[in-house]
Amino acid sequence: MVQDFQQNFVHNFGWRGFLLLFLFALLILKSISAQQPALNLLPIPANIQPGAGSLRIDSSFSAALTGYTEPRLERAAERFLQQLARQTALPIGRKAARLAQATLVIHTDHPSKEIQEVGEDESYVLEITGGGAKLAAPNPLGILHGLQTFLQLVDVSSDGLAAPAVMIQDKPRFPWRGLMIDSARHFIPLEVIRRNLDAMEAVKMNVFHWHLSDNQGFRIESKRLPKLHEMGSDGLFYTQEEIRDVIAYARDRGIRMVPEFDVPGHSTAWFVAHPELASGPGPYEIERRWGVFDPAMDPTKETTYKFLDEFIGEMAKLFPDEFFHVGGDEVNGKQWNANNQIQEFMRAHGLKNNQALQAYFNKRLQAIVGKHSKSMIGWDEIFDPSLPKDITIHSWRGQASLATAAKQGYRGLLSNGYYLDLGWPAARHYAVDPVSGDAANLSPEEKQRILGGESCMWAEYVNAENIDSRIWPRNAAIAERLWSPAEVRDPASMYARLDFISTRLELLGLTHRTHHGRMLHRIAGATATTEEFAALQTLTDQLEPVKDYTREQTAPAEPTSLTPMNRVVDAIPLESDAARRFSELVNRFIATSCLDGDAAELLRAQFTTWRDNDAKLQPLAQRSFLVREVAARSQDLSTLATIGLAALDAIAKHQPAPDSWKTRQLSALDKLKTQKAQLLLMPVPAVQKLVEAAAGGACFGAKP
Amino acid sequence: MVQDFQQNFVHNFGWRGFLLLFLFALLILKSISAQQPALNLLPIPANIQPGAGSLRIDSSFSAALTGYTEPRLERAAERFLQQLARQTALPIGRKAARLAQATLVIHTDHPSKEIQEVGEDESYVLEITGGGAKLAAPNPLGILHGLQTFLQLVDVSSDGLAAPAVMIQDKPRFPWRGLMIDSARHFIPLEVIRRNLDAMEAVKMNVFHWHLSDNQGFRIESKRLPKLHEMGSDGLFYTQEEIRDVIAYARDRGIRMVPEFDVPGHSTAWFVAHPELASGPGPYEIERRWGVFDPAMDPTKETTYKFLDEFIGEMAKLFPDEFFHVGGDEVNGKQWNANNQIQEFMRAHGLKNNQALQAYFNKRLQAIVGKHSKSMIGWDEIFDPSLPKDITIHSWRGQASLATAAKQGYRGLLSNGYYLDLGWPAARHYAVDPVSGDAANLSPEEKQRILGGESCMWAEYVNAENIDSRIWPRNAAIAERLWSPAEVRDPASMYARLDFISTRLELLGLTHRTHHGRMLHRIAGATATTEEFAALQTLTDQLEPVKDYTREQTAPAEPTSLTPMNRVVDAIPLESDAARRFSELVNRFIATSCLDGDAAELLRAQFTTWRDNDAKLQPLAQRSFLVREVAARSQDLSTLATIGLAALDAIAKHQPAPDSWKTRQLSALDKLKTQKAQLLLMPVPAVQKLVEAAAGGACFGAKP
Repeated sequence: MVQDFQQNFVHNFGWRGFLLLFLFALLILKSISAQQPALNLLPIPANIQPGAGSLRIDSSFSAALTGYTEPRLERAAERFLQQLARQTALPIGRKAARLAQATLVIHTDHPSKEIQEVGEDESYVLEITGGGAKLAAPNPLGILHGLQTFLQLVDVSSDGLAAPAVMIQDKPRFPWRGLMIDSARHFIPLEVIRRNLDAMEAVKMNVFHWHLSDNQGFRIESKRLPKLHEMGSDGLFYTQEEIRDVIAYARDRGIRMVPEFDVPGHSTAWFVAHPELASGPGPYEIERRWGVFDPAMDPTKETTYKFLDEFIGEMAKLFPDEFFHVGGDEVNGKQWNANNQIQEFMRAHGLKNNQALQAYFNKRLQAIVGKHSKSMIGWDEIFDPSLPKDITIHSWRGQASLATAAKQGYRGLLSNGYYLDLGWPAARHYAVDPVSGDAANLSPEEKQRILGGESCMWAEYVNAENIDSRIWPRNAAIAERLWSPAEVRDPASMYARLDFISTRLELLGLTHRTHHGRMLHRIAGATATTEEFAALQTLTDQLEPVKDYTREQTAPAEPTSLTPMNRVVDAIPLESDAARRFSELVNRFIATSCLDGDAAELLRAQFTTWRDNDAKLQPLAQRSFLVREVAARSQDLSTLATIGLAALDAIAKHQPAPDSWKTRQLSALDKLKTQKAQLLLMPVPAVQKLVEAAAGGACFGAKP
Repeated sequence: MVQDFQQNFVHNFGWRGFLLLFLFALLILKSISAQQPALNLLPIPANIQPGAGSLRIDSSFSAALTGYTEPRLERAAERFLQQLARQTALPIGRKAARLAQATLVIHTDHPSKEIQEVGEDESYVLEITGGGAKLAAPNPLGILHGLQTFLQLVDVSSDGLAAPAVMIQDKPRFPWRGLMIDSARHFIPLEVIRRNLDAMEAVKMNVFHWHLSDNQGFRIESKRLPKLHEMGSDGLFYTQEEIRDVIAYARDRGIRMVPEFDVPGHSTAWFVAHPELASGPGPYEIERRWGVFDPAMDPTKETTYKFLDEFIGEMAKLFPDEFFHVGGDEVNGKQWNANNQIQEFMRAHGLKNNQALQAYFNKRLQAIVGKHSKSMIGWDEIFDPSLPKDITIHSWRGQASLATAAKQGYRGLLSNGYYLDLGWPAARHYAVDPVSGDAANLSPEEKQRILGGESCMWAEYVNAENIDSRIWPRNAAIAERLWSPAEVRDPASMYARLDFISTRLELLGLTHRTHHGRMLHRIAGATATTEEFAALQTLTDQLEPVKDYTREQTAPAEPTSLTPMNRVVDAIPLESDAARRFSELVNRFIATSCLDGDAAELLRAQFTTWRDNDAKLQPLAQRSFLVREVAARSQDLSTLATIGLAALDAIAKHQPAPDSWKTRQLSALDKLKTQKAQLLLMPVPAVQKLVEAAAGGACFGAKP
């Protein structure tokens, strides 16, 4: 048909006419695709084919299950309808409809494994037309994912609530897409864990790795060895009944639950009740400080393994998952070195160094874990070619470790690059790929051994109040990296969708946005006026906490688990949206050789606000010590704005600013780059760009 | 001593010198009181004496109970410490300290009544010094109130968290300070009820009046007559176990729980299961519409009373409070008029009209309520001099009804003027006094019969999502009216403290602020840019829903209990802070004869933002039907801003604008006063003032 049309057209109008028509058609297509906003889906599905029209969503909406069914699917359908009702505010009934009348028909072929396994089929197909929707999957796992995709698609439209017509075929790139939460350093209440499981479901993560013991706390009830939690937790622990509930809660959301009990290091909290496990003399107290400490289990005593057998046996029954995480990281060896009996044991067994001793420990440990029908997983340090191939390497060190392990037949997963506590921007996490660097050159079979990755929320500086804001929305970028095709990697698109998912997660009950405001109100205090509070917001919008591992070094006093987390550094997000947008605006302006008058005006307005903000904030700094802590940063913002305004003035003169001016400004900017009150002033680099552009740089034709 | 000083001083410096010194001292005192910010307390206590210095609050804070104690007090102390920890983010231990070390010593003399009664002593004395704090009360009720006062006093200060030194002697003005929530028209989940009880405790309200049945729903499980809730609730009802829990929860917070079962009208939901109770032929369905309907119980059948005896007997056991609310309002009499048997009964018993028939019903009802050891309370309509004096009149009609009843020996309480659903500003509720108007002239003994008041949250247009925002913070103004001395009545002070308490209530878990943002996000949709969303906020900040009973008449389609509440009118607060502040700014400007240049600049900036806002919002209105609904209001805001700018321009010319100009502007403003999309544009009157001031009014010496 198309060929017929082409031939007839060429016959009548000649090739030139045809070419013109073709270009015209292209233009129309392009303008259609520009009008059609990209679908707000996160993670982006493997395959999307947009359809025509949309499915109207109103209070008559209903869903029905067909094919294989089970109570979990029924609960999923009911939760789905509740979420849809919440998201739309429509009074959508909670009962499943009969098949013929259902708006959404959900078809499942067969059950998934009773205990969810790595690598099970998680695929689904979702088809939405103007007349209805069908979701089909081989097993319930795909259905759970597909329901979340459907929820993401429902939105207000020009004539009502609707989901766009679309055909989606989807499946994950990696079978292990995890989030680790550390409940040891700060206890995280169950309701927080539950809402984070809700959020994981929303972005299709499927492993919750629970760091349950460390120097600072032993957070789980042991019925066989009850002194562990009684003496090692300050009373802050999860009962076994609570654990069983939350495992069921996770399973309902397609999420496996992998417990971690970190041994032989990171284990001071065990020794409070059981000093006999340690390699050095007791007594021990719960550790309140942060860092790597000396206490480590004694790998040379048979009683240590007897104890671990008892404990792991109990926990292996409680946690159904195949994997059992034994930690294994950061043993500094000092207690081993100082213990004569251990040194003698090492000589007697030909163990040349502490690494060999830990390998010996791990072999014994692996046997215990295996005896209780579990597969051992641990951090990089457990890797030793003498261990059996069924252990899995969880890498905090990087893709090179994974590649080395994979070549030798070990499975692995990546957390290096996914540490949420380091305060990286989402784009930096997003760029980290488990199969890159050394791992990119592996054979297909070796690559298969890289199961995926896990983001890690270490809890030195988080508690129930601010943990959501440290995990979300940035964790959604990691979720997309682990689910979507490797080619999906445009940060601009990711940020736009991160903003969308962030809003949706708040509707789901997450508190990453709302708690920020509440904490700022506490910092401002009850006497703050509306204007003063606005000034505090204007300032803190442009700040981020210090990055990587500098938080401890820059602290005003040594931080401990008892340090109040009520400061600006605890309240503000780890990534500033406002500063990112400001930087984008500067880039846009410079890209026009500084000719875009609208952008210049926006920049000038922004700088003026910043310049005048300090005067508005200082009276509050006199009344609140928590605001006073950031008063210097407020002055810095004002200084920064003055430099920015000077740059705009220079640009407005249409001739490059002199080098002496540039040198002065850059030197002033340098002083603003250091942390104060553990806070970074984020727009400094963008203003620096502007200064350089003004002084004969990009504003005058030089490549930025 | 003072007299000695005076005599010596006069002797040395003469009277004139003394007078000067006296004036100087006055000046110092005045400047001290101006420097010391007013304490952020709501309600304001009966007696406050500021002290010197403050009590530092850190993580060593502890509290201990002395004197009489009971589990409720221990729970209260523990909740207090938890709230203090939450409010300060300090890791405050949860265990009570030993007396000698306690920061706060809590002394109770004796128990309160096992079942809390009207008029029990609720007084307390709180003394805070730099060295510690003492809270003392005759019984636990005063302790509960005093702990809330203490929490309100804790704030950031210039050198840490602290509570100011102060001596407070406090007791309520009225013994009945209630909030009524209607769970019948929309079902309100228990977690919402609980957090509202928390908020009531925070502002010292002591009666939760629960409207549990109406035409639109029967919301409580009856074990004796289970069809009532099975057929009358759509499955949305409270179990008796839940009710018992929430009664205990309220008692823990010093709050009585008074149930209301509205009879003989407002009872369609009863008739779904029991049409035999009605005065007209059935069958009946749960009413979905709003308004006053015909169905009413048949007061002439003995079976009606037998049924009520059975039901009230069951409920009287469930609810321990002395009072039992029988509703009694708005019987339109149509079913009675149309029923021959009822007409015959009236003739036979000499009942001249429907009012007499209802009085007959109420006498029978009162006997049943009394038989079950309860005291009957009902709306104005139950008042009839033939009823015994122990009934209580709950007035939705006004102080005159209360005065009439009080003169005849009946007790009463006021809700007229306290209807939260009417959308009044807090200041208007605040000005309503139960002992004013006709009630002001009562004798002291008669005044005693006016027990206090109740705010009412009727639930036509509220659900779990937005109910907090319809109750709070305005309800706190009513709480202060009912607790604080009658002389406490400055709206400016009230608004400042309302803002403070609003923030604190969010920390307590109330959602009146955060849900507003979440609902606006839903309205904007996932495609909204940051700028578009900001434009939507700028517009909606200046809007309020239509007032009083106009919501139904102005609705685009007849509203029912199934109408989605997802529109702007459902999301925005009933009182706009931003519009109030704008109006204050205009008043300040005009008060300076329009000479205040800073105010003029602020006004110009505000108008410019409004003028330009519409262009930013319109693209979103194309994509979201919920935004499009307010597009006309957005244009109106732009028009309003243009008028405001014209007024400022006229004022800047320093000569009165011509009358023709004024007439044109006023006529344009008139058009902006009408509702659109059920929304009022709140700054119109302030701009009107500005126009009048510009045209030879207050800007040119005329009294505003």
